[in-house]
Amino acid sequence: MDQNHELPAFVEIHEEGPREGFQIEPRSYALAERAALVEALAEAGLAQIQVASFVSPKRVPQMADADALFAAIRKRPGTRYTGLWLNRQGFERARAVPAVDLVGSLYFYASDAFSRQNNGIGADEMAERQSAWVDLYRDAGLAIESAYLMTAFGCNLEGEISEARIAAALEHIAQMQRTAGFTLPKLYLADTVGWANPRSVRARVDLVRRILPDVRVGLHLHDTRGIGMANALAALEHGVDLFDASVAGLGGCPFCGHEHGSASGNICTEDLVFLCHELGIETGIDLERLIDAARLAERIIGRRLDGRLMHSGSLRALRSGR
Amino acid sequence: MDQNHELPAFVEIHEEGPREGFQIEPRSYALAERAALVEALAEAGLAQIQVASFVSPKRVPQMADADALFAAIRKRPGTRYTGLWLNRQGFERARAVPAVDLVGSLYFYASDAFSRQNNGIGADEMAERQSAWVDLYRDAGLAIESAYLMTAFGCNLEGEISEARIAAALEHIAQMQRTAGFTLPKLYLADTVGWANPRSVRARVDLVRRILPDVRVGLHLHDTRGIGMANALAALEHGVDLFDASVAGLGGCPFCGHEHGSASGNICTEDLVFLCHELGIETGIDLERLIDAARLAERIIGRRLDGRLMHSGSLRALRSGR
Repeated sequence: MDQNHELPAFVEIHEEGPREGFQIEPRSYALAERAALVEALAEAGLAQIQVASFVSPKRVPQMADADALFAAIRKRPGTRYTGLWLNRQGFERARAVPAVDLVGSLYFYASDAFSRQNNGIGADEMAERQSAWVDLYRDAGLAIESAYLMTAFGCNLEGEISEARIAAALEHIAQMQRTAGFTLPKLYLADTVGWANPRSVRARVDLVRRILPDVRVGLHLHDTRGIGMANALAALEHGVDLFDASVAGLGGCPFCGHEHGSASGNICTEDLVFLCHELGIETGIDLERLIDAARLAERIIGRRLDGRLMHSGSLRALRSGR
Repeated sequence: MDQNHELPAFVEIHEEGPREGFQIEPRSYALAERAALVEALAEAGLAQIQVASFVSPKRVPQMADADALFAAIRKRPGTRYTGLWLNRQGFERARAVPAVDLVGSLYFYASDAFSRQNNGIGADEMAERQSAWVDLYRDAGLAIESAYLMTAFGCNLEGEISEARIAAALEHIAQMQRTAGFTLPKLYLADTVGWANPRSVRARVDLVRRILPDVRVGLHLHDTRGIGMANALAALEHGVDLFDASVAGLGGCPFCGHEHGSASGNICTEDLVFLCHELGIETGIDLERLIDAARLAERIIGRRLDGRLMHSGSLRALRSGR
């Protein structure tokens, strides 16, 4: 099925759990607990951890203390502690917190309706607005590091998203690079609401490589429909070496409009690390410590979380037999 | 990674949930509820459903009414309603129930310690004992249809299971076929305790094809460590067209000795069907009805089950947009 690629030797995994996880929960959790989880994740070797979002405290009260949370974390050298913002006000708040490792990210939408729902403006207007972000980041002395293409595999509001639509969005990004004179290091295809399958993963990764040949492709996968790890495998075997994931499977999207209860969140970090290690791919992550972090997350949340490996244990102690 | 195979056009999925699921639960459930679940699964198009096991009512009291359960099910033409037995007494009980579709199965173990734990005898003695089953099935006029190789990817008691050990077990089966003069249609590699990975899946499927070239390879995968669906994808893309699975992810093994709570059970039927359909593979299964069956299973069990698609819903109604 996949004849032209080798497995990457090293895969970089960015942790999304602290933001994705605590943002979706109906109640707030103690700052000290959330700081302890971030510290445990850093100790496990996660090189980049999204700690919190700088969004409206009215809309997302769980993130109201983002500033204080960043300040409370004992930082580990070499780890990046990132935040998310969606507007200028949020960016200015993040900039004001010295402990935030600012990452210049742009956000594009393949689905017009999803962009309207999340941003109040259509996908084209949202793309235009990213030009202003390019200027804003430049003024702030912040390099542009990554762009996310949201709903890159389908949308619950609009339905199928054609490859032509994805290609057009990618062409827009390519054009923006030329016009504004920057080089985009990373482009993430985000399966925001769980439409990806192994075939579409490969096809869309190919599309990125064709239209943005110098970019490193990342995947932001959700396990909404149970095939997140199959999608990750398809990506790995297609040479993708950059993933977002969420410890213990924390998270999900409260605004995604699923029918039966909450949707599953990002693919589970420790399960993905396990897959990589079993395939001989290095991650720089200590799997046992990461499992400990996942169990800490479960104790904090106070109910059984979706991660599998955290409940079964790894194979390390079992390999040589009892 | 996988250069020599095409996706199968049709995949056969055998349902294990009613037995696997209710066997692991600490309490018993009403016969009418279990019958309704089996009927819902048959309505969804599952061609083979393992309804119950004929095992010691002392050891597994949940299965004590297996006979009555089979009798209560309204049978659908074309569906096979199978049972599991582990000794002659169980087989005789199953034979006495007209509603049981008897399948002549043999059980081999790659792990000596696991065989001792489950059967009280080592793997070699267990293999020898299968010769007696060949005779017993022949006397009963029952064709031998399948053999399971348990712990074919690793064992929590013995650790790694080498390919040489798997090869030896397969050679033993090949020899038994020649000696006893039967042809084995199906051989299942069972990842009994969750050790498989995409690489070992491909390697062991190749081993079966080399040693038993006429056999159809099946996989009995568990999602113990979160990569069950990645393993299923690897198998599909390696041409495997026969899987066991469990609706809603019901089940798991109470005797497998995991550290942190119960281990996840078989890979989830409806999530696997979703993967197949998204890849353009037919299954003969009505996914919407199967999701209904999964939700029925969850209502019966009375707590959130592991399946993902049952909670998010399929893409059918969403494809054309709202």
